[in-house]
Amino acid sequence: MLEFSPHLVEGSEALYLQLYRYFCAEIQSRRLPSGMRLPSVRALSQHLRVSKTTVETAYHQLLAEGYLESRERSGFYVVDVEWDEPVTTGRRRPVPPASSGQDGTCLVSAPAKKIRYDFHQARVDAEHFPFDIWRRYSNQCMQQENSGVLYYGDRQGELVLREEIARYLRQARGVQAAAEQVVIGAGTQTMITLLGFLFGLRGQMVAMEDPGYHGVRTVFQQLGFQVQPIPLEEDGIDVEALGKSGARLVYITPSHQDPTGIVMPYAKRLKLLQWAKRTGSYIMEDDYDGEFRYNGRPIPSLQGLDTEGRVIYLGTFSKALLPTIRISYMVLPPPLLAVFKEKLQDFDQSASRVHQETLALFMKNGDWARHIRKMRTLYRKKHEVLLNVLQQELGEHIRIMGQDAGMSVTVEVRSAYSSAQLAQLAEAAGIRVHPACHKWLIPAPDRLPSFQLGFGGQSAEDIEAGIRLLAQTWRPYLSGE
Amino acid sequence: MLEFSPHLVEGSEALYLQLYRYFCAEIQSRRLPSGMRLPSVRALSQHLRVSKTTVETAYHQLLAEGYLESRERSGFYVVDVEWDEPVTTGRRRPVPPASSGQDGTCLVSAPAKKIRYDFHQARVDAEHFPFDIWRRYSNQCMQQENSGVLYYGDRQGELVLREEIARYLRQARGVQAAAEQVVIGAGTQTMITLLGFLFGLRGQMVAMEDPGYHGVRTVFQQLGFQVQPIPLEEDGIDVEALGKSGARLVYITPSHQDPTGIVMPYAKRLKLLQWAKRTGSYIMEDDYDGEFRYNGRPIPSLQGLDTEGRVIYLGTFSKALLPTIRISYMVLPPPLLAVFKEKLQDFDQSASRVHQETLALFMKNGDWARHIRKMRTLYRKKHEVLLNVLQQELGEHIRIMGQDAGMSVTVEVRSAYSSAQLAQLAEAAGIRVHPACHKWLIPAPDRLPSFQLGFGGQSAEDIEAGIRLLAQTWRPYLSGE
Repeated sequence: MLEFSPHLVEGSEALYLQLYRYFCAEIQSRRLPSGMRLPSVRALSQHLRVSKTTVETAYHQLLAEGYLESRERSGFYVVDVEWDEPVTTGRRRPVPPASSGQDGTCLVSAPAKKIRYDFHQARVDAEHFPFDIWRRYSNQCMQQENSGVLYYGDRQGELVLREEIARYLRQARGVQAAAEQVVIGAGTQTMITLLGFLFGLRGQMVAMEDPGYHGVRTVFQQLGFQVQPIPLEEDGIDVEALGKSGARLVYITPSHQDPTGIVMPYAKRLKLLQWAKRTGSYIMEDDYDGEFRYNGRPIPSLQGLDTEGRVIYLGTFSKALLPTIRISYMVLPPPLLAVFKEKLQDFDQSASRVHQETLALFMKNGDWARHIRKMRTLYRKKHEVLLNVLQQELGEHIRIMGQDAGMSVTVEVRSAYSSAQLAQLAEAAGIRVHPACHKWLIPAPDRLPSFQLGFGGQSAEDIEAGIRLLAQTWRPYLSGE
Repeated sequence: MLEFSPHLVEGSEALYLQLYRYFCAEIQSRRLPSGMRLPSVRALSQHLRVSKTTVETAYHQLLAEGYLESRERSGFYVVDVEWDEPVTTGRRRPVPPASSGQDGTCLVSAPAKKIRYDFHQARVDAEHFPFDIWRRYSNQCMQQENSGVLYYGDRQGELVLREEIARYLRQARGVQAAAEQVVIGAGTQTMITLLGFLFGLRGQMVAMEDPGYHGVRTVFQQLGFQVQPIPLEEDGIDVEALGKSGARLVYITPSHQDPTGIVMPYAKRLKLLQWAKRTGSYIMEDDYDGEFRYNGRPIPSLQGLDTEGRVIYLGTFSKALLPTIRISYMVLPPPLLAVFKEKLQDFDQSASRVHQETLALFMKNGDWARHIRKMRTLYRKKHEVLLNVLQQELGEHIRIMGQDAGMSVTVEVRSAYSSAQLAQLAEAAGIRVHPACHKWLIPAPDRLPSFQLGFGGQSAEDIEAGIRLLAQTWRPYLSGE
């Protein structure tokens, strides 16, 4: 135990954060070797004379970021992280044809021009996708000997996949999940539709961050919910305003706020959970790209911190793996699970059984964990490249809002031109950038144009070249600090 | 032209039906060879001195049943139908594990017993599924060189698949469809949810056949629609009652009423279309298993007969191909398409892009047409086997309600026991049968127990053996005519 001697200072930064940083550094430098078992929460808290909550929170954070893994009834172990895996940036691929322009952006129709660089926020890296492995598992599932794959399966999702998801969420994201609480469906909007049916009452209020994910907002609106926009503070949703809104249901993206990128700190998470407990409300926590954190900021999942069963955890394979198999999931607290089974028993499963079985094999055989690790290293590098070139080329003209997580960075651009105009200029130069303006429910006339710049779908080289060209294109239209 | 000399008699049966029967016989006997071009509608109507509508309706019917195909700007051709393809009934496959019992049936929990025979109405034939071909196309789509498959695609569905669907519907089902009217989605319930959003008004009435497909009914109910049950007459929905209900929206299954199997005759179709025109209503026509007709009864699709843009045509690959890729579609009349694009532009596509691209290849290369023909022959045979053995074994105890189409036959059983009790008896003997009672919205206390017996998922041998065993099991609990 004596080898653990973090220098913890009461009063400055939260203790759990200091502890978390200490372990990050130890693991990254390999002073704590992979496979090593960490002391139990109780033992370490006694040793360091800090509360168990402090140690627990730090461990949760390390779990969530993939530094640790937890083995049932055994404890916490240092993960074998391939820190030094080189990032391939060479071999460029042809830019795939863009989608049909229905991205829900505010982009007005632009002159047709071949798009060389696309900073779409939801593009995954296509160069490192394990096509061979995926085909192998897919072929294994799709054959005469496994003819059950042709029949309607479990309406809640295939059990074998739900088990893998529950295991993954417990180990990597600190989520309290059993397979029977997991519900699978074709994308987050499908899950939200089911939740809308579950909560049922028409005209009911649902609170959402403003700005927030418009794809979910539109589902609630179509379902007849009254969407209450709640403003953001520096550290995420304004919990006072949420309390005053009277809503008993809130949808949030606490681990990487869409689109500002705010990571909600621990204290605010507790405050939000207290609100839910006090008012008997439910929180829908969308952890859409929670797999990717680059500079250890603490993100214990809300669901993992919740002791009252007030949190519905939502996750997806769209960002960390690929969007086009359309597999998302949610973890329901037991009382809601009972309502789900009662009320929605006649709903067919919407996600492909073929893909579900393939994905279950992919997870069971360790390929999912490997893929996440590989992508984390790769995206960390691309993220760094994007931030550097943005700073270099556009430094005094932009404010970088969302960083350190996910697959995109949000920038506010100092310009008298609108985001649509700036996007058009870029488009004419062969660069596609996606305005974030449609993410606000309440438009403010004096808001600066802002963009979500995705870095997943392009090589580091293209990211650099694309931003250089963008800066050159935009320069005459920008203003200084 | 002189070789066409059908014996048409005014006044007995509708002329188009007589003409249709004539062509069926000619094609089946190969007197009209495959590949032969039929005379144009105008030419034949002049030759036979009947109206163009008569010829058109007969041709539509022949198209819908796969006797003819239409080639754009060229005319109607006799299809190469493999009438004599032998039906493999040998080689038995192990019975795949049953789904988790969430079939929405009224079945109360039954003693656990190995199920040897499962008459689920939505099971496809797994012995003749072209696994090899499917894997080949799937692998072709899922590779580095086609990395676009990893990115979010067209929200309405991949254009290449929408084009294939439109072509197929025009040629084989007489539907007036262009690719831009086709909307793809993960299953019929997903399509109905989108339609619910499209029509929007909460508390609005929607009429449905009673009994009718409960899977769609529950979606409308969850969406807050007021579901108006409309009774059936011998030939389908009671159009008078529909008119009196005040609904301006109706969901129907005219080509194979679920669960009674009624095929709505031509005259009633016109009456229904007149109602829609007169009242400005919309008809949702669900042609879920329209590919399979066994004894030529006329079923021009409502959409193909509609001149006013009042019909939304819904189709699926779940019955004719396989349910677990979750691909369904609808064809929207142009004015509704505009509303769809405006209102639902932020909705992600719910069906897998991987499966969509695979299916497009499957259709483009002619494998879909081959599969349908093969399955039609196979199911025709199984359908015959099921009817024969039912008649033989249970003849005086049952009334067969739905036949000659689709993948199931509905039977009403003369018994004082409930459908749940009869299902339990069967279950205890290793036979799973699925009561149809949950398809009625308004329960009638004196209704006889009824079952939908699917014949797709079992070999002809198992169908025979299963029904023999069922008859033996039930016999003490049945009453006579």
